Amino acid sequence: MKHALSVTRDQDFAAWYQTVIAEADLAEESGVRGCMVIRPWGYGIWERIQRLLDDRIKATGHENCYFPLFIPLSYFEKEAEHVEGFAKEMAVVTHHRLIGDGKGGLVPDPTAKLEEPLVVRPTSETVIGAAFARWVQSWRDLPVLINQWANVVRWEMRTRMFLRTSEFLWQEGHTAHASADEARAETLKILELYRAFAEECLALHVITGEKPENERFPGAVATYSIEAMMQDGKALQAGTSHFLGTNFSSAQNIRFQNASGELELANTTSWGVSTRMIGGVIMVHGDDDGLRCPPAIAPWQVVIVPMLRDVPEDEAIVTYCRELQAELAKQSALGESVRALLDLKPAKAATKRWGWVKKGAPIVIEVGGRDVAGGNVSVIRRDELYREDGKLDSRVMPRGDLIANAGAMLESIQTALHCQSTDNLRANIVPLHDWTALEAAFADGRKNPGWVDVAWSKPTGAALDAVVERLKALKLTIRNAPMGQTGHPDDVCIFTGGTAVERVLVGRAY
Amino acid sequence: MKHALSVTRDQDFAAWYQTVIAEADLAEESGVRGCMVIRPWGYGIWERIQRLLDDRIKATGHENCYFPLFIPLSYFEKEAEHVEGFAKEMAVVTHHRLIGDGKGGLVPDPTAKLEEPLVVRPTSETVIGAAFARWVQSWRDLPVLINQWANVVRWEMRTRMFLRTSEFLWQEGHTAHASADEARAETLKILELYRAFAEECLALHVITGEKPENERFPGAVATYSIEAMMQDGKALQAGTSHFLGTNFSSAQNIRFQNASGELELANTTSWGVSTRMIGGVIMVHGDDDGLRCPPAIAPWQVVIVPMLRDVPEDEAIVTYCRELQAELAKQSALGESVRALLDLKPAKAATKRWGWVKKGAPIVIEVGGRDVAGGNVSVIRRDELYREDGKLDSRVMPRGDLIANAGAMLESIQTALHCQSTDNLRANIVPLHDWTALEAAFADGRKNPGWVDVAWSKPTGAALDAVVERLKALKLTIRNAPMGQTGHPDDVCIFTGGTAVERVLVGRAY
Repeated sequence: MKHALSVTRDQDFAAWYQTVIAEADLAEESGVRGCMVIRPWGYGIWERIQRLLDDRIKATGHENCYFPLFIPLSYFEKEAEHVEGFAKEMAVVTHHRLIGDGKGGLVPDPTAKLEEPLVVRPTSETVIGAAFARWVQSWRDLPVLINQWANVVRWEMRTRMFLRTSEFLWQEGHTAHASADEARAETLKILELYRAFAEECLALHVITGEKPENERFPGAVATYSIEAMMQDGKALQAGTSHFLGTNFSSAQNIRFQNASGELELANTTSWGVSTRMIGGVIMVHGDDDGLRCPPAIAPWQVVIVPMLRDVPEDEAIVTYCRELQAELAKQSALGESVRALLDLKPAKAATKRWGWVKKGAPIVIEVGGRDVAGGNVSVIRRDELYREDGKLDSRVMPRGDLIANAGAMLESIQTALHCQSTDNLRANIVPLHDWTALEAAFADGRKNPGWVDVAWSKPTGAALDAVVERLKALKLTIRNAPMGQTGHPDDVCIFTGGTAVERVLVGRAY
Repeated sequence: MKHALSVTRDQDFAAWYQTVIAEADLAEESGVRGCMVIRPWGYGIWERIQRLLDDRIKATGHENCYFPLFIPLSYFEKEAEHVEGFAKEMAVVTHHRLIGDGKGGLVPDPTAKLEEPLVVRPTSETVIGAAFARWVQSWRDLPVLINQWANVVRWEMRTRMFLRTSEFLWQEGHTAHASADEARAETLKILELYRAFAEECLALHVITGEKPENERFPGAVATYSIEAMMQDGKALQAGTSHFLGTNFSSAQNIRFQNASGELELANTTSWGVSTRMIGGVIMVHGDDDGLRCPPAIAPWQVVIVPMLRDVPEDEAIVTYCRELQAELAKQSALGESVRALLDLKPAKAATKRWGWVKKGAPIVIEVGGRDVAGGNVSVIRRDELYREDGKLDSRVMPRGDLIANAGAMLESIQTALHCQSTDNLRANIVPLHDWTALEAAFADGRKNPGWVDVAWSKPTGAALDAVVERLKALKLTIRNAPMGQTGHPDDVCIFTGGTAVERVLVGRAY
């Protein structure tokens, strides 16, 4: 069977990923090292993610703010463990002016050197913590529940579009609480919010759980993640929620007077998801014809392509399509009005059809003269692109039927994508009980047999380092210890042979 | 009469401005030079501005994208005039790593110096132009109509919150067209879009017009602005739209094959508005009790303050308020659902009332036990805060009346604020015919008698420089030449005595 992309997932997953990004007009290299240009269809998906996630973040009582892009060096020096984790990869502003070099070029002006260099934020705990210290005086000021949508920069040597770029877009939530219990509850509430968002909006089945000590956010007491399984069996950490205890509040002096008049340190949390999620959507829902965009986050859910031939009859087709678009926009799907586009760009209908297939528009409707005459439309459902005989499955149906069913069809596509994500995840997690079996499963460094589910004794310090090194030799990491485990008193740690205390998922990861 | 702020507009306009920002929780100093923290109420206003303006930008066929924060030096070197205008005030990234200094501090790692320094974008013409050069091959690819919401940095020596900060938030539109006429039409279409947005959403009466040559965007052929008049008589440039001709496309090689197969340079435009608009909203609509937020951009339009006394009867008040909030949310105003908040924070009712007055919530509703018993509510309309006798104008009315009238009341507040802005502008523009009268009008460097409307011969080069210098001595600038002028053949240029060709507005500005 011939497909729209020049490379299939089976042939070369990494090349296929780059091809989808290019062919679906999601993003491109910018010419600036490590930074990408997010193109309209890719940014439209991000805007949908922002809108849907922002509504959920606000519904749980958080307010949006905006904090500075630049963070003075001294802010980082206060939190030793945090800076240790980030110091190696930050963009540093040292000058505030350029001058001509006398040869037609430009150089930083030596007379405009900053007394204190500024770091382009890799994350904002330090600068937001400084604000919390100003805002929090009494227990009445708590909790502080804020969020910001921003760009951040972490200097990366090897970048991959959406998954790892020097600049990326994200939301970062930051909260301060009167007690450790309340802050822990917030951390888990957000983890659940991320899980529900990923499942319901992105149609990604994810596993929530706690990261092992060696994978914690620098300065955190506990880090939780949602992990999604890509079609190549690798894991993608798609969101994290951190309980920071009093580590940041003690460094930044976030203190409050409690009801008894005593000074206490606040407990803080932070949590974020980023444009990386779009990489996950591609690698979970894409196929050999391009992206399949979940309807909830598709900028356009239904795209109407008129089949025009530069003849007078074209006008009737366009009128018919405009009416169709207006009727579709009155329907609703997934709790919102249907987003329907009429594509009138100057190009051949077949080119446009395949363009929208590659972009992953959930429903593509083609309308030709025969459709208009018969009161019909030709409908392509992106998740059921081909018939059993391998031909494109374009179904002629009465216009009224399409309008009446569009909402249900979009919801059915959303559900179908989610089910496929669940099936892929369930089929590729294998419980294993001994190290030899694990080594055998991952013997081929290029193929990923999914994840393995193993019991471990949760070692710390040097014992943990030894486990991490053994896994690293197989290019593996511990993804997380899934939530909601019941005890496994009979299990033995696959790494140490000691008594296991919990189960963890192990796999290769992006 | 006593007011909620410690300083009035008459006493000290600049101090009053800072006080409104602090007391209305709009923004605060961040501790990072030239950068501010935008607090929830201020950021909520920005989110409303974004939502309403973004809808209008998209409705005119523009799509959002995202381009890199960092721009390599070489991109600036290509456009000489552009870099001349910006080179003096840019943040320059020179290193990509920090290391310990051996004394517990951090320094940029000398081994991690960038080969080519990166500039933090002051605006994105150069990096977006490079993308346009990749995207545009044929006339079929035109027009390209894109927009981005982003943070930008221009190093400023003297900053003032919202009006001039080193980092600010904005939208920047960038378009490429097949002809100069089409690009000019786009420039003016956006100018009109900005005007309508400012008038209808921000309730700001603005004057659209072309900036004089000396105030053009670096590299532009023509720059247009919307200018608003503050209550102190000064002008605020609240948005600009630039026709760039082929200046950027020739530097960046944005060429296309036209229908006849010949290569042509595209004509480009750019246009933007920023968080500066919020400064304008404060200085136009604020009064001695704080901000008066136009309902269209108020994060919360109606705030309900229950008058609780820590007694069992409180529960009935809260229930009554919740029902009221739910009913209000079902109403609509200005084409959207009414945004109603029930304020249950732990503080005294009077403190909360004045807090919301200072923030400028359009309608504040207080509900006490007596209101519940009588089925009433006590309503404060922010734009009619005091009665003639100087007392707070809190009106008791039946709950049903308030619900039925809330939408109309909000629309009436929106209109009232806009009318006051129009009145202030009209009352403070004076037509003048000779230089002596102009000098006399602005003799006092501290008082601003509004703007003057004068005829001029539109000199260029050295003759324009001389005019600019004469005005500068009086701290004046030419704001713009208003659109829609009919000829003034009999007028004499107020500066040169030559024949006038158009009228311009002159005033002091932020």
